[in-house]
Amino acid sequence: MIVLMEVAGIVISLFAFAYAAWLYLWVKKQPQENVQIEKVGKLIQDGARAFLGRQYGLLFRFAGLVAIIICALIPKPIWQGFSVQNIFMMISYLAGTLFSAFAGKIGIEVATIANGRCAYAARDGIKPAFMTGFRGGAVMGMAVVGACNLGVCLVYMLLGDPQAILCFSFGASSLALFAKVGGGIFTKTADIAADLTGKVELGIPEDDPRNPAVIADNVGDNVGDVAGMGADLFDSNVASLAATIVIAANLDRMSQFKGNIATVFCYAALGLLASILGVMTAKIGKNGNPTKALNSSTYVTTGIYAVLTALATVIFKFRFEIWASCVLGLLVGVIIGITTDYFTDDSKKPVHNVAHASHTGPAFTILSGISYGFLSTMPAMIGTGISTLISYRLCQNIDPTCSGEYALFGISMAAVGMLSIVGMIVSNDAYGPIVDNARGLAEMGGLGDKVLEITDELDSAGNTVKAVTKGFSISAAGLTVIALLGTFMSEVNSAAAELGVAGVTGFDVMDPLVFFGMLTGAAIPAVFSAILILGVDRNAQRMVAEIHRQFSENPGLKEGKSDPDYKRCIEIAADGAIRELIPAGAVAIVSTIVVGIVGGVSAIAGFLVGNIVSGLLLALFMSNAGGLWDNAKKYVESGHEGGKGSEAHKSAVVGDTVGDPFKDTAGPSINTQITVVSLIASLLSTLFLTFSIFR
Amino acid sequence: MIVLMEVAGIVISLFAFAYAAWLYLWVKKQPQENVQIEKVGKLIQDGARAFLGRQYGLLFRFAGLVAIIICALIPKPIWQGFSVQNIFMMISYLAGTLFSAFAGKIGIEVATIANGRCAYAARDGIKPAFMTGFRGGAVMGMAVVGACNLGVCLVYMLLGDPQAILCFSFGASSLALFAKVGGGIFTKTADIAADLTGKVELGIPEDDPRNPAVIADNVGDNVGDVAGMGADLFDSNVASLAATIVIAANLDRMSQFKGNIATVFCYAALGLLASILGVMTAKIGKNGNPTKALNSSTYVTTGIYAVLTALATVIFKFRFEIWASCVLGLLVGVIIGITTDYFTDDSKKPVHNVAHASHTGPAFTILSGISYGFLSTMPAMIGTGISTLISYRLCQNIDPTCSGEYALFGISMAAVGMLSIVGMIVSNDAYGPIVDNARGLAEMGGLGDKVLEITDELDSAGNTVKAVTKGFSISAAGLTVIALLGTFMSEVNSAAAELGVAGVTGFDVMDPLVFFGMLTGAAIPAVFSAILILGVDRNAQRMVAEIHRQFSENPGLKEGKSDPDYKRCIEIAADGAIRELIPAGAVAIVSTIVVGIVGGVSAIAGFLVGNIVSGLLLALFMSNAGGLWDNAKKYVESGHEGGKGSEAHKSAVVGDTVGDPFKDTAGPSINTQITVVSLIASLLSTLFLTFSIFR
Repeated sequence: MIVLMEVAGIVISLFAFAYAAWLYLWVKKQPQENVQIEKVGKLIQDGARAFLGRQYGLLFRFAGLVAIIICALIPKPIWQGFSVQNIFMMISYLAGTLFSAFAGKIGIEVATIANGRCAYAARDGIKPAFMTGFRGGAVMGMAVVGACNLGVCLVYMLLGDPQAILCFSFGASSLALFAKVGGGIFTKTADIAADLTGKVELGIPEDDPRNPAVIADNVGDNVGDVAGMGADLFDSNVASLAATIVIAANLDRMSQFKGNIATVFCYAALGLLASILGVMTAKIGKNGNPTKALNSSTYVTTGIYAVLTALATVIFKFRFEIWASCVLGLLVGVIIGITTDYFTDDSKKPVHNVAHASHTGPAFTILSGISYGFLSTMPAMIGTGISTLISYRLCQNIDPTCSGEYALFGISMAAVGMLSIVGMIVSNDAYGPIVDNARGLAEMGGLGDKVLEITDELDSAGNTVKAVTKGFSISAAGLTVIALLGTFMSEVNSAAAELGVAGVTGFDVMDPLVFFGMLTGAAIPAVFSAILILGVDRNAQRMVAEIHRQFSENPGLKEGKSDPDYKRCIEIAADGAIRELIPAGAVAIVSTIVVGIVGGVSAIAGFLVGNIVSGLLLALFMSNAGGLWDNAKKYVESGHEGGKGSEAHKSAVVGDTVGDPFKDTAGPSINTQITVVSLIASLLSTLFLTFSIFR
Repeated sequence: MIVLMEVAGIVISLFAFAYAAWLYLWVKKQPQENVQIEKVGKLIQDGARAFLGRQYGLLFRFAGLVAIIICALIPKPIWQGFSVQNIFMMISYLAGTLFSAFAGKIGIEVATIANGRCAYAARDGIKPAFMTGFRGGAVMGMAVVGACNLGVCLVYMLLGDPQAILCFSFGASSLALFAKVGGGIFTKTADIAADLTGKVELGIPEDDPRNPAVIADNVGDNVGDVAGMGADLFDSNVASLAATIVIAANLDRMSQFKGNIATVFCYAALGLLASILGVMTAKIGKNGNPTKALNSSTYVTTGIYAVLTALATVIFKFRFEIWASCVLGLLVGVIIGITTDYFTDDSKKPVHNVAHASHTGPAFTILSGISYGFLSTMPAMIGTGISTLISYRLCQNIDPTCSGEYALFGISMAAVGMLSIVGMIVSNDAYGPIVDNARGLAEMGGLGDKVLEITDELDSAGNTVKAVTKGFSISAAGLTVIALLGTFMSEVNSAAAELGVAGVTGFDVMDPLVFFGMLTGAAIPAVFSAILILGVDRNAQRMVAEIHRQFSENPGLKEGKSDPDYKRCIEIAADGAIRELIPAGAVAIVSTIVVGIVGGVSAIAGFLVGNIVSGLLLALFMSNAGGLWDNAKKYVESGHEGGKGSEAHKSAVVGDTVGDPFKDTAGPSINTQITVVSLIASLLSTLFLTFSIFR
């Protein structure tokens, strides 16, 4: 049955690629005849390609190094006898980076042609513009989930080893570390520098072509929000599947009920199918509301998924407890998305209160934003906790001989459920930067106020949907790493059995090794975020200096008589992003290895738990506070609390600037940090089991 | 031997009171002949007394309610048979609130007479002014630790029941919740409102008597930083002793080595003695450096304590492993204090970088301050983790038949060690608001620039020392609650043994009940802080409105021709503080009970761990970021980065305002929140063991 499901997974993945190709061609066919848009769009495309090239170049050097280490160490150190398995692990790892890189590349290519076409289509109204933006985003959604499912199915089909899937997942995480963190630094460097010099110092509009940073800003939207976010969700999705497959493989060996891996592959394939159907049915009326269109296609996908998996459960005689856990995860995800949305929605109290507090000065914008950010962590934290609890209880009685393993399987299936509609989520997310770019291009191409109005409406829908999908993806990452914790224990026990030493039955919070690990692990997301924010800060200062240089050396610039040197700004953003991401990544990786060597598997278990708990808390806090400040600024700009130019507006702009690296650099990068750390822990479990200073 | 040590503890406590009385009379004897200072000093004293009266009034109603609940439930529900023990528990609880309230009252009384005398003494130079401020603070130090030791010794001597000490500790925590949280809201309400209207809107100096909020600001220093901080450290100190005594009592029953409780009482008494000697030897040269004087008396106390406890260990044949854990805790505390200081010291890089970033606008002040605040959590988190690890290892082999209990005893003794010099720490801490008030009084009394210069120097020393003692007290609270976690497990097992049900051997992080508790517990400090910060925000807005009202209705005010209505501002701060503290306290208490009822003892154990980990992280982050912003502002004001009035200064002021509720309201209140939650969990362990929805 597993093979059947794998084949089904591969077929649906290939179908997703075919559909993506059709969407791509459709987008490409849309007209775009404005010369200025053509010119600027080309600059954006070149800039994005150049950054992606450099990033991937650095990544592949890093990945090459890691691949050699993997080949030397996993599954067994080669000095204990060389095995062909080691080479397979290395190949799986490299495949993980390549599949994710491929999906990112596709996403960037389509996004950088869809932006101009979307702007041009807006001349004919909201409907064609929305469809161009949405279908452009959907190419990325299909590519990400298609590549993910194809990769997992192929690796498992060819190697049949769950540990190979962990290596594949680690490859995807490595890429995500570079793409999400680097892209996050790039995009906020450019955004902040462009705002500071353009809006604040020179008093020119947001996307004015006289600003040398304006193209870098648009490139940033693509490399940060399209490629980076795609890599992040690819990573979460593969990690949840990897964790689940490791546990399922144990169960298929131990339990009477054998259909566990088959269930995972089946549900994953159906998730992709549901997303394809959701994208296909997405539509908007002639004067329709784009937010409603995006949200309703999400709900349609959710419904289709629940029905399809229920049918499959009946047909293939899977266990309904597992189906229930999976659907529970999905529902909790939706609820978390909606409640989190309350804290960032500009029609709700938090945004109004922050906007109102801005009257008294920027300190109060910050204080109230931080407070609501803190409050906003509550629904997702408790929701994640409750879905862990219920899915555990649902599944622990499937087979009394391995109730602990089934309970973990339930939790990991809740994560799979939460991530099942990831194709739809990536589509919605990638829509955002496309229409954001479209707005900029419409301005630079001089398409007029009516077009700007339409692109503004599309952009605002993108922001609203983004808040929901972010709450979703952070919670899913939380559940995934809980599953990875289970994987870690499975890996430790397999390693222990092989070494003939005692395994572990759990990790006691009263054990000081666990506690030491927990305190250290909890500090890492804070340190990681700090390094990223300081990096953005430093990099933005560099770019501001460059912009000042251009304006002073090129006097025709301000009057619009000569072109600025856009490329230099793109280079600064790219150089800085790559330079600043290295220490952050190093802190996460090195601290895991040090804690493991100091305190062994118990300390690492504590480290993972502390890391998850504080990582979830900080990621939610930063993403939501950032979104809240962004919307509070927009709320003031739309005429409330004094409107543009008022004291409240100045304060709200400060809040937005603080929120930028919160929501687009540090907050979402914590996801990737947690996954990287969890996978390293699982992969090196044998090392930490055999060697540690304390034990 | 226990009785001997208790008697010694009582004698040294009484000696501390006698010394405090001597210091009090000495301070009172110092001359103060300035009429304006007399008048304003009286206003401050009246305001502080009035707030304390209202706060204690509310507290005693709350405490009366809790006392009835305790009497009904602890140690056993009265419907299972009434026992005189229940009444003893209630009395212990009430004694805890009364002893702490008594120490706070003494502190306020002396602080509000020492402030004016310190200002007046500054006319004769730094030496007499320093001595007046320091001895005024030392009265509080002696009173807090004297009352703490006296209470613990008396309760244990009379009742001989470790659980009674837990109730005493819970009483102290209840008071701390009101005093620290309420005082913290009061002080920042007044501080922010005074700054916003005075410095920003009217452009008058910080302590100008024309500002209606200026007296409330000075009252706030006393109720927040003297009474509140004293109650907080009283609470931490009692909690560490309570946790240790519960564990020691088990060991005295189980182990061959019987001197465990005696060791605790002995070391606690010697800590007080060392603090008395440290205060006695504190001195400053004629033109001496007050920072050096304060720090050197801290180090002297540390040295005396290490020597005295080593001698006692030899004489009374205590175990050297326990001594080593205790001294390790103290040393780690000192190291944490010093490393944390790096992030807030105005001669170090973080403060300089934040000041420099302020050039680019307030957003960068905030972003860089938050980043360094995050980074600053690292030393204390890892330091606390390592001292847990080492003290556990040191003590686990004392008696192989109860190695787990001894290991926990080692951890709790590290907490006792870290808090051993709390008498000295409270003295240094209470010195701060006295000299801060003295500065204000010198300005209002027109004592001239030379006096202001001296009081400024004294004030700056107070700020520097505060950063060190805060790192110290947060880490000590962290270790204490780890010990309380051990107490919780002991209590669960005693309850289980009595009920004839299975006890627990640990709490597995892989247990979803533990995990659910952990996620919920981790969210509480964030929510608690958010409620406090929003409370300060709301309350400050109310006071700003009142100040505007006074200036518009009383036209003579601005020219200094008529007096403002200081009392109205004090009332607003007091009313608001009491109103805003209730929801924050309720969240902490109710969430503990709900999680316990939902998930039983496993969920509560997770809840405590999550609460400690995220509480430590956020408390350190907020305290340090706040201190950093404060010093960055002072650094700019001292002429760097453009000095007063520059753009950088404006940004630095925004940072300082954001930092105010961080460092003086939310950050330090988290300590109290953690202790309250831990004690409730221990006291209600029987309830959670016998009844819960999931189990």
